[in-house]
Amino acid sequence: MPPKKVYEAMKHFTTIKYGLVQGQFELREKLCNKVLSSHFTPENVVITNGGSEALNLILASFPEKSKILMPKPYYYSYPYLASYNRLEPVYSPMKDDHIDMQDIENKISEVNAIMVNSPTNPTGMVEKPDTIKKLERLANETGRLLIFDEVYRELIYEGTHYSPKGDNVINVDSFSKTFNLCGARIGYCYSKNEELIEKIIQKKTHTSMNTSTTGQSMAIAALDAPNSFKEKNRKIFKERREIIYKGLKEIGFELHKPEGAFYALPRATNPQKVVEDLFDRYKVIAYNGEWFGAGNRIRLSYALKKEKIEEGLGRIEKYIKQENPSTIGEFNYA
Amino acid sequence: MPPKKVYEAMKHFTTIKYGLVQGQFELREKLCNKVLSSHFTPENVVITNGGSEALNLILASFPEKSKILMPKPYYYSYPYLASYNRLEPVYSPMKDDHIDMQDIENKISEVNAIMVNSPTNPTGMVEKPDTIKKLERLANETGRLLIFDEVYRELIYEGTHYSPKGDNVINVDSFSKTFNLCGARIGYCYSKNEELIEKIIQKKTHTSMNTSTTGQSMAIAALDAPNSFKEKNRKIFKERREIIYKGLKEIGFELHKPEGAFYALPRATNPQKVVEDLFDRYKVIAYNGEWFGAGNRIRLSYALKKEKIEEGLGRIEKYIKQENPSTIGEFNYA
Repeated sequence: MPPKKVYEAMKHFTTIKYGLVQGQFELREKLCNKVLSSHFTPENVVITNGGSEALNLILASFPEKSKILMPKPYYYSYPYLASYNRLEPVYSPMKDDHIDMQDIENKISEVNAIMVNSPTNPTGMVEKPDTIKKLERLANETGRLLIFDEVYRELIYEGTHYSPKGDNVINVDSFSKTFNLCGARIGYCYSKNEELIEKIIQKKTHTSMNTSTTGQSMAIAALDAPNSFKEKNRKIFKERREIIYKGLKEIGFELHKPEGAFYALPRATNPQKVVEDLFDRYKVIAYNGEWFGAGNRIRLSYALKKEKIEEGLGRIEKYIKQENPSTIGEFNYA
Repeated sequence: MPPKKVYEAMKHFTTIKYGLVQGQFELREKLCNKVLSSHFTPENVVITNGGSEALNLILASFPEKSKILMPKPYYYSYPYLASYNRLEPVYSPMKDDHIDMQDIENKISEVNAIMVNSPTNPTGMVEKPDTIKKLERLANETGRLLIFDEVYRELIYEGTHYSPKGDNVINVDSFSKTFNLCGARIGYCYSKNEELIEKIIQKKTHTSMNTSTTGQSMAIAALDAPNSFKEKNRKIFKERREIIYKGLKEIGFELHKPEGAFYALPRATNPQKVVEDLFDRYKVIAYNGEWFGAGNRIRLSYALKKEKIEEGLGRIEKYIKQENPSTIGEFNYA
C-alpha cells in the first residue's frame, strides 16, 4: 500500500489543467529538498511517465548508431530501448552477478554511454559504492554518459547505496518501488548536464507533454510520508527475501542471496520449459532469465505477501521434486 | 472543470499496482459501449499518455524514411513526431483552411500514410463527413494508413463529426478536451488493424508501461457523466467562439469563423513580432502561425473564461490601434 497521504491528496482537486512538461515545480523542489543531494536544483529534474519514459528519452538524445554499454544480465527493456532509438547495445558480462570493472574499462573507449542499474533487476545484487564511484570517475574522465538507473535505491538489504553525479551522469529514479505507486507511473531523471535535460524536455513536449498532474500530486504527498514508511517497507521486503532465499535453497536451487530490489535469479536448465510448466500447471509466474541476458536461470519476484511467497515455493517444490529433478543443481553461468 | 464524478473516483483507492500496458479493460470496454461505433471491441483500443503518446507510438510503427502526408497548416507536433521516428513529412497545402482532396489524391501514391486532424488545431476548421469518407476510402483502397486525430470531436459548432474506420485507419482521441482533463493525460487510439495495435502495445511496454491507473479511473468515471456535460461544454465554447470571432473582426483582423476546437487563426504580417510584442508588453499569449505551417497568421486559443477573452481582445485592440496598424488586413495565405 502507498502512504496514506497519497489518498488525502486526491480529495482536493479542482482543475486538471496542463502542467509544465518538465514537471510541477513543487514536486521537483521537494525532490531536491528531501531526496537528492544539495548539488541539484529543480531545473536539473524532469518528471516522467515512470522510469521507463525517462530511460527512453535519455537514449533518444544520442545520434543514431551510438553504442551503449550495459552489464549483462540487464533489465529486459534496455536492449529494446536501445534498438527503438537506433542505438547499438554493447554488453559487459557480469562476474558473479556484479559489474566487471576491468571489462568496462576495456570497452569504454568504443562506446558513447554506459547504462547501469543498481540495485539490479534481474540479479537482485547491489553494486558497492566503491564500484559506482569508479563508474562515475570513468564517465567524467572519458566524457561518456553514465545513465544510472536507481529505481530500487530504497530497497537494499546488504550494503549501501551511492548515487553518482557530475556533468556526465544522469540518474533515473521512480516513485513506483519506494512508495508502492507503480500504477501511477511517476518517475524522474536528474542531471547537472543542462543540454541533456533540455533535449529531454523538448522531446517530451511532443511525445507525451506533462506527466499526469494528479499522479504528481500523489507523488508530492508521498514525499511527506514519515521516514518510517520507507523503513517499514524495507523491513517487509527483507523478510520476504529471507523466505524466498531459504525456500529456494531448501528445494535445491543454486542462487546468490539477493542484496536488494525484489528478485531471485536461481539456476535452471531449460528455463523456458520451467517457466511454461510453472505457469501452465502450477499457476506460478516466473520469467525466463534469457529475456534478461541471464541464460540457464529463472527470475522470481518476491513483491508478494509472505503467505503467497510460501504458497509459490510449495508449488515450485512440488514441480521440481515430482517432474523435473534435473533442472536445478550446480550454479553455472550461461 | 471536469465532471464531478471524476473526483469521487479518487476517494476510493486501495492499491496502485501496475496495470495492463494496453489499458484497464473496464475503460476500454466502456469506451466501446459509450463512445466508439459497435464495430470496435476492447481489443482494438490502447490507452495512452494523452493523444500525443498515441501519435508517437503509431508513427514508431513505420520503417525508417517512410513518408507521412499531412495537410498544412498542421498541429505543430506532427513534423517533430515524424522526424523523431526518422520519417519524412510530405505536406498538402490546405485550400481556404480545408483539406484539398485533389492534392491528397495526387500525392497518395508516393506516401505511406496520411495524418489528419479534424476539428483542426490550429485552423479551427471542421472537415465535412463527406471529405473524411473520401479519405477513408482512399486509405482503404490504396493500403495507406489514415491516422485520424479526432481529439476535438466533441467541440464542433458548425457541421458534424465523422469517425473514419477500416483496416487501414487508426483513430486518436483523448479525454483532455471532451472532459477538461488535460493534465491527467489520458488519451487512446483504436483500430481494427490488429498487427498495428500489437506493435503499439509492444513499444509502449518498454517506453512507458501502463498509462496511470489513477488517471484511467478518472476517465472511467468521466464516461459516466451525463450527456448534458458535453452539451454544456460545447455551449460554453460556442459562446466563447462568438466573442473572439466578433472581437477580432471588429479590431480589423481577417479570419475564418472557427467551426470547432478552440482556436482562431487570424492574418498578421510579421507574426513573430506580434507574438513577442503581445507577450512582452500586453501579457497576451499568442502563437506564431509559422510553428503550425501557417505563415502570416497568429493562433489564439479561446480555452479561457469569457471575461478573460474580452480582456485579451481589449489588449490586442490597444496594441494594434496604437502600435502596429499595418500588421492586419487583407486575408492572404502565406
